[in-house]
Amino acid sequence: MTSIDLNCDLGEGFGAWRLGRDEEAMPLLSSVNIACGFHASDPLTMLRTLRLAKREGVSVGAHPGFHDLVGFGRRQMAQSREEIGADIVYQVGALLGFCRAEGVPLRHVKAHGALYNLAAGDLGVALAIAEAIRAVDASLIMVCLAGSAMTEAARRAGVSYVEEAFADRAYAPDGSLLPRERPGAVIEDAGLVARQVLLMAREGRVRAMDGSEIPIAAETLCVHGDSPGAVSLLRAIRAVLAEEGIAVRAFEARSTRGPALS
Amino acid sequence: MTSIDLNCDLGEGFGAWRLGRDEEAMPLLSSVNIACGFHASDPLTMLRTLRLAKREGVSVGAHPGFHDLVGFGRRQMAQSREEIGADIVYQVGALLGFCRAEGVPLRHVKAHGALYNLAAGDLGVALAIAEAIRAVDASLIMVCLAGSAMTEAARRAGVSYVEEAFADRAYAPDGSLLPRERPGAVIEDAGLVARQVLLMAREGRVRAMDGSEIPIAAETLCVHGDSPGAVSLLRAIRAVLAEEGIAVRAFEARSTRGPALS
Amino acid sequence: MTSIDLNCDLGEGFGAWRLGRDEEAMPLLSSVNIACGFHASDPLTMLRTLRLAKREGVSVGAHPGFHDLVGFGRRQMAQSREEIGADIVYQVGALLGFCRAEGVPLRHVKAHGALYNLAAGDLGVALAIAEAIRAVDASLIMVCLAGSAMTEAARRAGVSYVEEAFADRAYAPDGSLLPRERPGAVIEDAGLVARQVLLMAREGRVRAMDGSEIPIAAETLCVHGDSPGAVSLLRAIRAVLAEEGIAVRAFEARSTRGPALS
Amino acid sequence: MTSIDLNCDLGEGFGAWRLGRDEEAMPLLSSVNIACGFHASDPLTMLRTLRLAKREGVSVGAHPGFHDLVGFGRRQMAQSREEIGADIVYQVGALLGFCRAEGVPLRHVKAHGALYNLAAGDLGVALAIAEAIRAVDASLIMVCLAGSAMTEAARRAGVSYVEEAFADRAYAPDGSLLPRERPGAVIEDAGLVARQVLLMAREGRVRAMDGSEIPIAAETLCVHGDSPGAVSLLRAIRAVLAEEGIAVRAFEARSTRGPALS
Repeated sequence: MTSIDLNCDLGEGFGAWRLGRDEEAMPLLSSVNIACGFHASDPLTMLRTLRLAKREGVSVGAHPGFHDLVGFGRRQMAQSREEIGADIVYQVGALLGFCRAEGVPLRHVKAHGALYNLAAGDLGVALAIAEAIRAVDASLIMVCLAGSAMTEAARRAGVSYVEEAFADRAYAPDGSLLPRERPGAVIEDAGLVARQVLLMAREGRVRAMDGSEIPIAAETLCVHGDSPGAVSLLRAIRAVLAEEGIAVRAFEARSTRGPALS
Repeated sequence: MTSIDLNCDLGEGFGAWRLGRDEEAMPLLSSVNIACGFHASDPLTMLRTLRLAKREGVSVGAHPGFHDLVGFGRRQMAQSREEIGADIVYQVGALLGFCRAEGVPLRHVKAHGALYNLAAGDLGVALAIAEAIRAVDASLIMVCLAGSAMTEAARRAGVSYVEEAFADRAYAPDGSLLPRERPGAVIEDAGLVARQVLLMAREGRVRAMDGSEIPIAAETLCVHGDSPGAVSLLRAIRAVLAEEGIAVRAFEARSTRGPALS
Repeated sequence: MTSIDLNCDLGEGFGAWRLGRDEEAMPLLSSVNIACGFHASDPLTMLRTLRLAKREGVSVGAHPGFHDLVGFGRRQMAQSREEIGADIVYQVGALLGFCRAEGVPLRHVKAHGALYNLAAGDLGVALAIAEAIRAVDASLIMVCLAGSAMTEAARRAGVSYVEEAFADRAYAPDGSLLPRERPGAVIEDAGLVARQVLLMAREGRVRAMDGSEIPIAAETLCVHGDSPGAVSLLRAIRAVLAEEGIAVRAFEARSTRGPALS
Repeated sequence: MTSIDLNCDLGEGFGAWRLGRDEEAMPLLSSVNIACGFHASDPLTMLRTLRLAKREGVSVGAHPGFHDLVGFGRRQMAQSREEIGADIVYQVGALLGFCRAEGVPLRHVKAHGALYNLAAGDLGVALAIAEAIRAVDASLIMVCLAGSAMTEAARRAGVSYVEEAFADRAYAPDGSLLPRERPGAVIEDAGLVARQVLLMAREGRVRAMDGSEIPIAAETLCVHGDSPGAVSLLRAIRAVLAEEGIAVRAFEARSTRGPALS
């Protein structure tokens, strides 16, 4: 049987502030990345988001980021690897506390924003993340940008990983994500997103900005939870996958690169 | 054999700022309460403090407080019990992450500052803390002010606990701590502290401000790590306990009130 | 000519998070209270809110609160008066920096949330606020809950003040605000709000929860900017005031209690 | 008459944490840079530091930094120029509030840590700072690393400035500061520091790491307040300057590069 994982970053409110439509998005996912209080969220928001995931049977992961609330973890910070590793352990541990309290397994870790982007291209940072994940729990799965330094780091650190592609982001011909500030970097048209998802899930390829098709090995596809159209996009993706007979299901740990579909 | 536990709050620096002489104090303790980033500390400071505890073979506990760095967790905050519970789970979980990374067992939890004082007199708050501790790990021991609402809460929540007395704080005739702002509330004379410790450890009593002796059942004695004389006090306490043949040893879990000495 | 001031707390987003519909609400106000970064907002949000006020010709005030972002300044904190005074000077000074940069006069100061509520009943806290305001700029006007300890403090400190009533909050028979958690405390029906405003503006009275009418001397009326219906309420209030020939106009400094209408 | 300014970064404690020996260092300075709450300090610490400067007759400046308490403003952050400008206005405004409250003139602004280093080499960032300073108060003086992009920015923005050299830092042959992590970057020997100060003050030159002497035009010399030996260094500098008949006196505004001594 053929399946793919759909993941989204949720629980990104903070105190009185809300972001995204978590209640509507959660039931459409197979995996969720829960913010851990450094770039967004707070203890009560984490607890509520976890309970929502539990109710909807969605597989839970930690979503640690730079300690920069006002910048939403989207501004790069010059931290040492030791600092990055400790920040990851702290945030993953904090979510682990809630998972134990709620009896929900913590299954994966995915870095957020500027930290994710940094790790995609910097093996040292990616290793700091991978080693921190392994130190907290050797069975945790690291979510890596497909074909980036993160997958290399996970392999070197002996951490299980899955590779991720983005349903609603445009790709450069070299397989990297087009930077957010570039026009067309974030795809908002549901039809285009659904088509990109199908190509990724069925054929393990993505059409880059220049029209060329490049291979991409992804066990999980991400939709951005903070975009206004996230729920519509998720519904369109669900519809097209159902039509093609591809199930939406949480990924399994895998430590070697394999075909896109399991 | 006769023993008592000595605990201290360490790891209370923050970023570039240091507080206390952790390197010197740690080897003199049997238990340490490690700050968790809300009233003091940060991920790297937590990691370093934990490694120091591991090296010295000191039993490790979490020391969660109000989320008020600038006030060092010493200003009472009007939080809901739900907020308090979530804040405890978050902080204990974060330290648990480091304990797993370092292979060190997390054994106890002791609330800090204004949260500790609030819980000593408010059963609802104390229950929120006790239930949060149990939710994270049912084997964790709650450190309670001897004879306070905290012990009652631990019993009701079915959480193992030990009772704590303060080596360097003056007591009111009703067994409560003299508020910090009262003259004489913090005892700085090493001789007086040693005498108070002996009376507590050997006879389960303390001499209150009015000269009366009141019973106090404490398995663990606290010395304040942020006072300038903490290291000298600890040495004086160690000396007088050694003379009397009382060992300094981490407490065992106990869920019923017993005699001071085990 | 007859007039009243309409004020609202705006600029209460934080980083990536938005709160309220500032663009729509601003043109409907005569005065705005701008959050200063302690309970909400950040430097860029402050600048943008100030520019919006400038464009719409709205009179500008600072809206300082407790330093508690995650609690939105709605949780009481046990601060010393010295701490409260310093926090006020800091926040008012920060907004003053932007006012100088934009060439906009800073005219008033209104405390936020739990600090406002605390000051309404505690003369010591109210004096700490009043003296801090005077220290930064003796020409600043303090916005006080009508008939509360705040007005008394402003008089004692020699600070100009205006008295404030709430368009969308229910009153107890003693003239105090019904606590937020009580049912009916926040009035959401536009018709009821408009009627309450008219009674306040024209007759200097308010109908309390028990049906009794009590006197209230208010030069400024507040509508809560973070409620979803704020813009509709403001429009309804504007309409009814226009019908009655009462102008909406920023208040003048006044240091003595006078009739509701100028 | 011949004179030079001595400046130091003080008021860099935070809440319960202290850093440096402000009480002893302040009387030895002619100018002080007061931290503004983003990389260090808090409202009460700012107030106390300002009162200390007032008592000792030391000229007062703001010392704004990146919003990164845990990193002490020493980690570079990828902020937009708009964000940097707003952060500067906020922090300078906050200190201005205290200056008005205490009747002390605010005379200069000097960026801190990673922001200072970034501005020294990046004209866009330096311009954002210069324009923010001018916007708050056109009479404020910008303290610039001698011969850096900061002086160029001050000139372009039409902001008065002075050039700064470091008494206790080693220089590269191109006139830049040796990075902190390089061995020998921070000079701790009082004799070497005194000699470097004399050469800077009397001859407008500094001996670089390779032994070459390079010109440096500095109206103000900085000693790091957070180094343990700061007070001893300041005394040694004072002694050697007194011997040579060079007065220690706050700088005057100057918008053109001139000789080192006034």
